[in-house]
Amino acid sequence: MSQIHNFSAGPSILPKEAIEASIEGLRNFKNTGLSVVEISHRSKQWEETMEEMRQLIKSLLHIPNNYDVIFLGGGASHQFTMIPQNLLPVNGKAAYLKTGTWAANATKEAKFWGNVQIVGDSEDKNYNYIPKGYEIPSDAAYFHITTNNTIFGTEMHHIPDSPIPIVADMSSDIFSCPIDIEKYGLIYAGAQKNMGPAGVTVLIIRNDMLGKAGREIPTMMDYRTHIKGESMYNTPPVYPIYLSYLTLKWLEGIGGVPAIQKINQEKGHVLYSEIDRNPLFYGTTEVEDRSLMNVVFRGIDEKIETEFLKLAESRLISGLKGHRSVGGFRASTYNALPLESVKFLVETMQEFEKSYQG
Amino acid sequence: MSQIHNFSAGPSILPKEAIEASIEGLRNFKNTGLSVVEISHRSKQWEETMEEMRQLIKSLLHIPNNYDVIFLGGGASHQFTMIPQNLLPVNGKAAYLKTGTWAANATKEAKFWGNVQIVGDSEDKNYNYIPKGYEIPSDAAYFHITTNNTIFGTEMHHIPDSPIPIVADMSSDIFSCPIDIEKYGLIYAGAQKNMGPAGVTVLIIRNDMLGKAGREIPTMMDYRTHIKGESMYNTPPVYPIYLSYLTLKWLEGIGGVPAIQKINQEKGHVLYSEIDRNPLFYGTTEVEDRSLMNVVFRGIDEKIETEFLKLAESRLISGLKGHRSVGGFRASTYNALPLESVKFLVETMQEFEKSYQG
Repeated sequence: MSQIHNFSAGPSILPKEAIEASIEGLRNFKNTGLSVVEISHRSKQWEETMEEMRQLIKSLLHIPNNYDVIFLGGGASHQFTMIPQNLLPVNGKAAYLKTGTWAANATKEAKFWGNVQIVGDSEDKNYNYIPKGYEIPSDAAYFHITTNNTIFGTEMHHIPDSPIPIVADMSSDIFSCPIDIEKYGLIYAGAQKNMGPAGVTVLIIRNDMLGKAGREIPTMMDYRTHIKGESMYNTPPVYPIYLSYLTLKWLEGIGGVPAIQKINQEKGHVLYSEIDRNPLFYGTTEVEDRSLMNVVFRGIDEKIETEFLKLAESRLISGLKGHRSVGGFRASTYNALPLESVKFLVETMQEFEKSYQG
Repeated sequence: MSQIHNFSAGPSILPKEAIEASIEGLRNFKNTGLSVVEISHRSKQWEETMEEMRQLIKSLLHIPNNYDVIFLGGGASHQFTMIPQNLLPVNGKAAYLKTGTWAANATKEAKFWGNVQIVGDSEDKNYNYIPKGYEIPSDAAYFHITTNNTIFGTEMHHIPDSPIPIVADMSSDIFSCPIDIEKYGLIYAGAQKNMGPAGVTVLIIRNDMLGKAGREIPTMMDYRTHIKGESMYNTPPVYPIYLSYLTLKWLEGIGGVPAIQKINQEKGHVLYSEIDRNPLFYGTTEVEDRSLMNVVFRGIDEKIETEFLKLAESRLISGLKGHRSVGGFRASTYNALPLESVKFLVETMQEFEKSYQG
């Protein structure tokens, strides 16, 4: 089996070591003789793993003690409704920054629960930049941002100072660079980019954020249920949590978030430099807002795009086709994607340039 | 590694063949060179698996065409609130049969959304029987039952004729015996007993059930979102679905639901016969309501219980300790548990009887 260069936007590449370690757990979890998917979630061995996972995340991201870390089944999209249900007071207001499809979805769901003020919106240019110079209303309950926009390839490299708690969807860039946790009231992220496989969402919640919305909340929708139950109020999604744990152990092993940030910066530098240099391609986003997770670019005409995609696929470069909202190409360069794959893509772009007859 | 006899109540034993097949998919899914957890959920290969999974469930349970089958991330507990949110009209009424802890939780959550009439309740005898002779109100929107009560070891072997649609939590006995689907408006089940690992819930919904509640529903909470999106409105919990698919392929391979029902009946017969025969043990539930999935029994005194549990554990019988609500023992005998494990447990009970000095 040849090595695939997996640039998928998510579900996406994970460290081989983590997948292999999860296979060991699927056959014999911690020498219990049982599979990790067959053992009781109330067993000592699993409860230990849950606790280690919480501590690992706290340690990797330097999370202060006044924050809880919980894991919920399902995806980040569930949080689009649960966040305002838990945080947006009846008759209150929340502020949203509309920077892409997912941010727009989050905005839409928040309107179900209260008033929403959109403080910045980049839809005018097909979300190819991060709005700046906006004002955050101090009378809103929170300010919601999407730190990385998977579809459009923009990322917030500067988090504003905010008079109100920031709530951030970090689904596609959590664990890719250090986070100044104290700027946030709540952080959430679906696992299936840098953290693990699909099926679990992590939340980091400052402990003064809850219980202020003034509405009754069904048990399973109430974050307090899951904080109190230590993410085991009901049976957790065991395997998604386990492979996430092993992925983060891999991250810890290579030096943690600062180490991966350097590698991610190098990958971004190598790929964006080629996009800027190569006359057949161009980047679609504002340069200062370029994402280090999803590199979105286009060919200068349709024929070039078709031909290059064909060449890339023939060279086992996978998942490069751009999202239909932008077209062209999207190279997702999450934590587990090796620099070698980026270099290989760049070589392929260079060879394509040489051979291309226009 | 010696073979464990895994009587866990859930997460619980799964077919070895299914786990091994999932490991192949974790290394190289359908010869793509990618792991099943790394491939896009929009890839042809994964979409095929989703479709096969839907068809497999329809075929195993003989589901008519006017029902949709969907998969949601998270557990069955989420459905305790989503069901009334979707089905219980504003100012309307739903009928519930209270047969155990989970049924009670479902009842509690339904009260959040409307009026609840409890038509039968076996809490008076610690849920050791299924209420009978109750009347189902014809002016309620639906009648909610829990077909198997994992904690207390009772199972509904007779589903009443109902003037209103029956909604059933089948988390712990789906796929264990044939279901007369047309009796139901909605069936739901968390995967982690007979279907697969924790992290996904299957729903079977008759297509006239939705859109009648008269309330607005957040996108992710609305079953119609997931029916329309074919369970891929957002990224599905890929591995939990995949291992569930492989578990059900195993079930199909051994002859499907009628074949496993025979084996389950045999397992129940062997174990309950010994409980009734052995003077050191007794069953805790009404005989006619005995579950074929969770066999709950006790020792005649505390010392016997302590000693027997010790012996069982020394013989690699795992997960036998009863739930604290009942005490004693609970032997869960889900589909994947071989008859041999039940026979081994029975032999252990017989040897314990011979050696026990009272």
